[in-house]
Amino acid sequence: MKTVYSDLHGLQHAEAEYIRGKRVASFEMPRRVELVLERVRAVALGPVVGIGDYGLETVGKVHDAEFVTFLSTAWQAWSAENGEIDAFPNAWPPPRASRRATKRPGAELGRFCIDMSSPIMAGTWTAAKAAVDAAVTAVDIVAGGDHAAFALCRPPGHHAGRDYFGGYCFLNNAAAAAQAFRDRGYGKVAVLDIDYHHGNGTQDIFYDRADVLTVSIHADPQVEYPYYSGYAEETGEGAGADFNLNLPLPWGTEYTGYGAALATGLGRIAAHGTEALVVSLGVDTFGGDPISHFKLVSDDFTRIGQAIGGLSLPTVFVMEGGYAVEEIGVNAVNVLSGFKAVA
Amino acid sequence: MKTVYSDLHGLQHAEAEYIRGKRVASFEMPRRVELVLERVRAVALGPVVGIGDYGLETVGKVHDAEFVTFLSTAWQAWSAENGEIDAFPNAWPPPRASRRATKRPGAELGRFCIDMSSPIMAGTWTAAKAAVDAAVTAVDIVAGGDHAAFALCRPPGHHAGRDYFGGYCFLNNAAAAAQAFRDRGYGKVAVLDIDYHHGNGTQDIFYDRADVLTVSIHADPQVEYPYYSGYAEETGEGAGADFNLNLPLPWGTEYTGYGAALATGLGRIAAHGTEALVVSLGVDTFGGDPISHFKLVSDDFTRIGQAIGGLSLPTVFVMEGGYAVEEIGVNAVNVLSGFKAVA
Ligand SMILES: [Zn+2]
Ligand SMILES: [Zn+2]
Repeated sequence: MKTVYSDLHGLQHAEAEYIRGKRVASFEMPRRVELVLERVRAVALGPVVGIGDYGLETVGKVHDAEFVTFLSTAWQAWSAENGEIDAFPNAWPPPRASRRATKRPGAELGRFCIDMSSPIMAGTWTAAKAAVDAAVTAVDIVAGGDHAAFALCRPPGHHAGRDYFGGYCFLNNAAAAAQAFRDRGYGKVAVLDIDYHHGNGTQDIFYDRADVLTVSIHADPQVEYPYYSGYAEETGEGAGADFNLNLPLPWGTEYTGYGAALATGLGRIAAHGTEALVVSLGVDTFGGDPISHFKLVSDDFTRIGQAIGGLSLPTVFVMEGGYAVEEIGVNAVNVLSGFKAVA
Repeated sequence: MKTVYSDLHGLQHAEAEYIRGKRVASFEMPRRVELVLERVRAVALGPVVGIGDYGLETVGKVHDAEFVTFLSTAWQAWSAENGEIDAFPNAWPPPRASRRATKRPGAELGRFCIDMSSPIMAGTWTAAKAAVDAAVTAVDIVAGGDHAAFALCRPPGHHAGRDYFGGYCFLNNAAAAAQAFRDRGYGKVAVLDIDYHHGNGTQDIFYDRADVLTVSIHADPQVEYPYYSGYAEETGEGAGADFNLNLPLPWGTEYTGYGAALATGLGRIAAHGTEALVVSLGVDTFGGDPISHFKLVSDDFTRIGQAIGGLSLPTVFVMEGGYAVEEIGVNAVNVLSGFKAVA
């Protein structure tokens, strides 16, 4: 299995985030994917290839144009007003408020940002764009005949919605991959999100579409970020009704419960008549993860990969979360090796 | 003119707020109203009286029950999970997201808070409740026969909406005063907001009501907090259509421009057939204000008071913003003295 990687991800290197009233060192850091890359090489998963440049065509199909323009120019506008400090919002639209464009960079940030974990810095746009390019490159590898490919994306993407960013995510890499499959003639596509956190952005982007089924297995949003979505009752709307499946699980979930939800999700993906699969590969379901509360062990990730491989679908894996940095390589690559073993 | 004051306001004493990427000392502080009180005494404006306890009846008519329950229990829930540190949100509902209740204090904070300037601490609820009680006490003084009264409220209130808090505001004191006038038989009430910032919370609370006219003169929201409301096109809805008047003014506004907008606002209040007036008295329109960009001088506040006094209406003044701390007493009391001179 080929791995797609670009070192441009390193341009996003947040010093801090704010959580529960405190400024803390950012859990999301460049070293995460560097360790995954090391592990990819250590197990000889397959060749590591660079990214293509796909412009903004795919991005423009999964994000609003106004949002893309904002994100691509946010740092210039912000730093011109505020100097070279990381851009965090300090106000955002209240319920029932206007979402009209303003003339202040900080207010624009509040219009498009959903939390205090995702500062925009000088290289954010370049890094985010490169991550999308990695995802689309992986799709082209599979469209070209490979059974599967791994987009070692960073920053992650699944919390970025049509017109918002947050949760360490700026552009939605997995959504771009799903859209790229559609654009290459795959009629029915599915996204399986196995990150610990609900893939709220991916759900949002495809919520009214039947051509891309979205399935997410994640911690109960009543107790876990992103809090404001991820409930089982969210099943899609309009043409997308019944094409979104959320499988929230309680804190403390071990593989017994996780594997059952995974089987349910895979069953739904098979029933969809899926022709190509995108996996949002987060490994923050690991018991040792510093910000999560599931109890998977490293061998469980191999099982997850095997179960996904059982679908025998053209598959692109897109890297998402995982903050137990030292174990992230083993856990992420276990999924890929498990998949490869049965594919 | 009587001044209503309670030293319970001191229980809200935020150390810091976050603005444009930085943690800074809070501009909103107890000393603000202490200096106004000193000035009230220095000019012998009239007696200083304490607050009554009005329970939650009036509050419940201007804020959602779920919000009031949240605010009154937020510190207990937050501190039980996070310890005795000031409560700031770090995530909030994205567009199109669920607003279902969660089980995490931080997520609940994000559901009800609109910015990073308004931490909840141990005494927040007591202070906010006392500020509302001050406003309603002032209404009772006027309903009892006085021509006017001054509620020296703190924390301020006009940024607090039906179900949200922020901008240093937790409960909407001015809205509670307007509601209290209605409850005491005044058929047509108006709120005139002369704070530098749009009175977004007050607008929100009365947006669909014709019995309480809301008029706000403030800095253009395209360049100034609260950014996401305050446009001239926001005129009310439903039964409240045409009962909200926003008069946004550009940075650099001096009394020439300000006085013209004030005359327009006062004309609308007269045309409403207003029987009782509530004035949201912010003095951050002062040229020396550290966070604002209007250019009023201290004598202009006397003119404002005189113009309002010309309406000859039963009037309650409710203290809102003003961050040029050393001048806040003179400027606020100039409005009251100007009013008194013509009343
Ligand atoms: Zn995650
Ligand atoms: Zn103000």
